[in-house]
Amino acid sequence: MKSAVKVTITGAAGNIGYALVFRIASGAMFGPDQPVILKLLEIPQSMSSVKGVGMELEDCAFPLLHDVVMTDNPAIGFRDTDYAILIGAKPRGKGMERKDLITENAKIFSVQGKAINDHASRDVKVLVVGNPANTNALIAASNAPDLDKRQFTAMTRLDHNRAIGQLANKTNSLVADIKRVTVWGNHSSTQFPHIDNCEIAGKPVYDLVSQDWAIDHFIPRVQRRGAEIIEARGLSSAASAADAIVDHMHDWALGTPDGDWVSMAIPSDGSYGIEEGLVYSYPVTCKDGSYEIVQGLELDEFSVSRLKATQQELLEERAIIADLLGG
Amino acid sequence: MKSAVKVTITGAAGNIGYALVFRIASGAMFGPDQPVILKLLEIPQSMSSVKGVGMELEDCAFPLLHDVVMTDNPAIGFRDTDYAILIGAKPRGKGMERKDLITENAKIFSVQGKAINDHASRDVKVLVVGNPANTNALIAASNAPDLDKRQFTAMTRLDHNRAIGQLANKTNSLVADIKRVTVWGNHSSTQFPHIDNCEIAGKPVYDLVSQDWAIDHFIPRVQRRGAEIIEARGLSSAASAADAIVDHMHDWALGTPDGDWVSMAIPSDGSYGIEEGLVYSYPVTCKDGSYEIVQGLELDEFSVSRLKATQQELLEERAIIADLLGG
Repeated sequence: MKSAVKVTITGAAGNIGYALVFRIASGAMFGPDQPVILKLLEIPQSMSSVKGVGMELEDCAFPLLHDVVMTDNPAIGFRDTDYAILIGAKPRGKGMERKDLITENAKIFSVQGKAINDHASRDVKVLVVGNPANTNALIAASNAPDLDKRQFTAMTRLDHNRAIGQLANKTNSLVADIKRVTVWGNHSSTQFPHIDNCEIAGKPVYDLVSQDWAIDHFIPRVQRRGAEIIEARGLSSAASAADAIVDHMHDWALGTPDGDWVSMAIPSDGSYGIEEGLVYSYPVTCKDGSYEIVQGLELDEFSVSRLKATQQELLEERAIIADLLGG
Repeated sequence: MKSAVKVTITGAAGNIGYALVFRIASGAMFGPDQPVILKLLEIPQSMSSVKGVGMELEDCAFPLLHDVVMTDNPAIGFRDTDYAILIGAKPRGKGMERKDLITENAKIFSVQGKAINDHASRDVKVLVVGNPANTNALIAASNAPDLDKRQFTAMTRLDHNRAIGQLANKTNSLVADIKRVTVWGNHSSTQFPHIDNCEIAGKPVYDLVSQDWAIDHFIPRVQRRGAEIIEARGLSSAASAADAIVDHMHDWALGTPDGDWVSMAIPSDGSYGIEEGLVYSYPVTCKDGSYEIVQGLELDEFSVSRLKATQQELLEERAIIADLLGG
């Protein structure tokens, strides 16, 4: 049997964490022959609740789950970890300015970046989910000078999956037949869900939908889907966010299928004219635990303007927390 | 590709339902090559919430999920369904007598039994989770005269998995090494978690734990685990219950491993001296979509008394709702 991989989850007692940890323990993230050790890192006031989660994990008798560690100490939570999923973040309080939200979270993620730098496996793969996810990932990476910045990513896979879901619904297609959707930029309402390269069952997407539909209905709906879910459920997306986390880590670790790609927010290398270093969502393929940006996609004027608009938001976020960017 | 199986879930907007439906859609219940259609049956006042669940399912872009139906009409919800998972039930209200709880739920499950009888696939497999689960399954089966009573089961798999979890923890063993645990009787505090036949990594369990530990610590802890979870989480078990549902249906549909068995509450055929017809949890093996009670286990005097005690509770429950048992 393979040796167990260690997976650290912050905010494990929250709604996304609760929807996630059982799926990881069941083998959904790393496959049916890969044992896992879960390390649930919480804030002190959530330790009782996270212990309940640990008890329920025990009650599932998952054959692949070799151990569960519950702690409020980042040094213990990140020690030797292979995968770090950073969900826990400060939510926007009443009357809180967006700038304050970014600054408050920047403090949390600079501490976690340092702890990962000092304690995690040298090959750790980090996924930031807590918002503002791209900028939080930038801060964490900046505070981990001994690691490669490419080990730090942020999640736009939920947006990517939402885009596929909307296309499947609109065209009455099977999800499995929809390829080459991209979400560019920031995980926020400036994101750019982009389907010019999309194929559905081998046909160009614009054989099935119009560009007007894409611009007037599809893009805004994907951008605002989170609010639509809150309105229907009275609660924010949890299980679908957890599922996107499973997908992001699964594909990063085990690879993307031939002929398709996924969206991941990663440190930009300057591709497509985006400022180097910004954590920006690109179309990527994954193989052998590594990712590469899909190159050579043609972008029309409208698309270029959208890529720049979401970059602009990320530049503004970075300016707010510039003093927390180590090195 | 296989044609999709239809799976009806009642109470899909509740906490267990929310933890369950995404796992079914991901392929955890019926395997990675079996498409599914989910039919979410809710009460009218939960339709907005269940629509939010349907939206999140769409947002996951599950390749195996071919359709989602949301309805408050049992005729639509159960039409042609292959698997019915009955979670929705009336919870015990303040000052409510146990007898009233049983009677109130009996009404719900007699209606659902009739609807399944009239609309479901002739091969439907039914799992009752809503409490009192065994007696609710008895009522549903009694109201479905055109179906085989053996198609109606109730869930003791969560108790079974909890028992394995406790043994793994106590003996510091891997879950995969623990075989032949049984939970007998009612899914209630009279259940009998029984390990006399258990082996851990090929050794008799009593090489590793004492009978005193089993009687004084193990049995009561498994029986009362639900309350222990509520105390830690402030909420009742949801994800672990959902996981047990996945396991129950998975094993019933796809079979149990050689050399091991699982616990399922099923209509008694009189085995082990239990009154025929009661829905009683037995050790069973599954193959080709059917189950058989494990025969020939030796039971000592203590065990026989425990089997009778939990039977007695089921007889009392049945007496309360005798007038609702059709045919």
